[in-house]
Amino acid sequence: MKPSALLASTFFALLASAPATLAQTAPVATPVAAPAKVKSKTLAIVLFPRFETLDVFGPVEMWGRLDDYEIVTVSEHGGTITSAQGIDTVTDYSFADAPQFDILMIPGGMGTRTEVNNPVMLEFLQKQDEGTEYTTSVCTGAAVLAKAGLLDGRKATSNKMAWSFATSQDGDVLWQPSARWVEDGKYVTSSGISAGIDMALALIEDLESREKAENVAKVAEYIWNDDPADDPFAVEVAETN
Amino acid sequence: MKPSALLASTFFALLASAPATLAQTAPVATPVAAPAKVKSKTLAIVLFPRFETLDVFGPVEMWGRLDDYEIVTVSEHGGTITSAQGIDTVTDYSFADAPQFDILMIPGGMGTRTEVNNPVMLEFLQKQDEGTEYTTSVCTGAAVLAKAGLLDGRKATSNKMAWSFATSQDGDVLWQPSARWVEDGKYVTSSGISAGIDMALALIEDLESREKAENVAKVAEYIWNDDPADDPFAVEVAETN
Repeated sequence: MKPSALLASTFFALLASAPATLAQTAPVATPVAAPAKVKSKTLAIVLFPRFETLDVFGPVEMWGRLDDYEIVTVSEHGGTITSAQGIDTVTDYSFADAPQFDILMIPGGMGTRTEVNNPVMLEFLQKQDEGTEYTTSVCTGAAVLAKAGLLDGRKATSNKMAWSFATSQDGDVLWQPSARWVEDGKYVTSSGISAGIDMALALIEDLESREKAENVAKVAEYIWNDDPADDPFAVEVAETN
Repeated sequence: MKPSALLASTFFALLASAPATLAQTAPVATPVAAPAKVKSKTLAIVLFPRFETLDVFGPVEMWGRLDDYEIVTVSEHGGTITSAQGIDTVTDYSFADAPQFDILMIPGGMGTRTEVNNPVMLEFLQKQDEGTEYTTSVCTGAAVLAKAGLLDGRKATSNKMAWSFATSQDGDVLWQPSARWVEDGKYVTSSGISAGIDMALALIEDLESREKAENVAKVAEYIWNDDPADDPFAVEVAETN
């Protein structure tokens, strides 16, 4: 044992002899993973080529701990979809075989530049939206919801670095340039990328409780920005024009 | 048009007529996606069943913007790996066909309880570590690195809610109970789940520059906790024992 290792060993003995014993004699209780439960509802993430990685998996991390909602993925043709950062995700459903989902989320990413002009995507969102409890988006996913006409007359927000792209999709949306996320009825839209995590926790508060949302954030060692009006990346109108 | 939509339209016209015009006449410039570049090095994420979703995809979001490193995934047998939150990711390599990677990252999640006792995993990490520039972990990924003996005599940290599990893997590690992440030579270990994002940005600062790391955080609308000593989820020794 090297001297530094000996020091480490002494430090460890003082620090953690009890948990080491515990770990050997009993299952380690930890809330890191979602409990195995039968979940009666579905929360579907709509994937498309070049979706933004964290837009999807930040909320998935948080929503994966909902008691009643199973997280599933859906894409136009099913199969494997590659994110903007090169991650390959196998989707659970194609648009054709998708059932009615209870909650829908569409992420942003460069792929939204294509999807706003994809009538199959827009029709799928319109059809699903007729039966959802919540229709949500992260980042420029709001641009696709807007193009599908789902946000007409609603308050909504999007990524502040792609503001003109998003807002140009539909002038009938009450676009909010300063908002971490926006809830208007069943429509919940978040600002860019990481903001999706804050929005996801707010939805957990809506669906279950404040206590649950705070616990999920704690388990994920995540510092929740829980004020939708606190937007450190808000854009000035002048800057976006 | 509904009255509310008319109001929205007026609001939008005042707010965004210029960007709307811009969006119609010129490509929308946005830094949301990583630029397409030839990347000469590899940063590999080691996946296993029941890995923690955000442990992986938070860092991937940030590291996806590195100039020189391609993000790849590797698992024991290759193929599709399911996360603790039920997401299916197709891995790029199996352990058998993996080349030497330049940077390695192993995430946490309930699956680490199995992997600390998987000799094939431990041997793979040991072999890869001989040639890496950096060997890194998020959350209880540090438990697996520790069990492989790679952190002997090194300062390291792990998830604060699975502290006894992690620290019990190797008493020769200088476990740090209060640290958002820890750098000791080429070994960089982060605290639980979301802390991996802060660690990932710190590695970008090391590999490229402070300016690049700050820009990546801004693009992701992420409020970077850039102080490794600022650990809101630090555990007291008494609590962990």
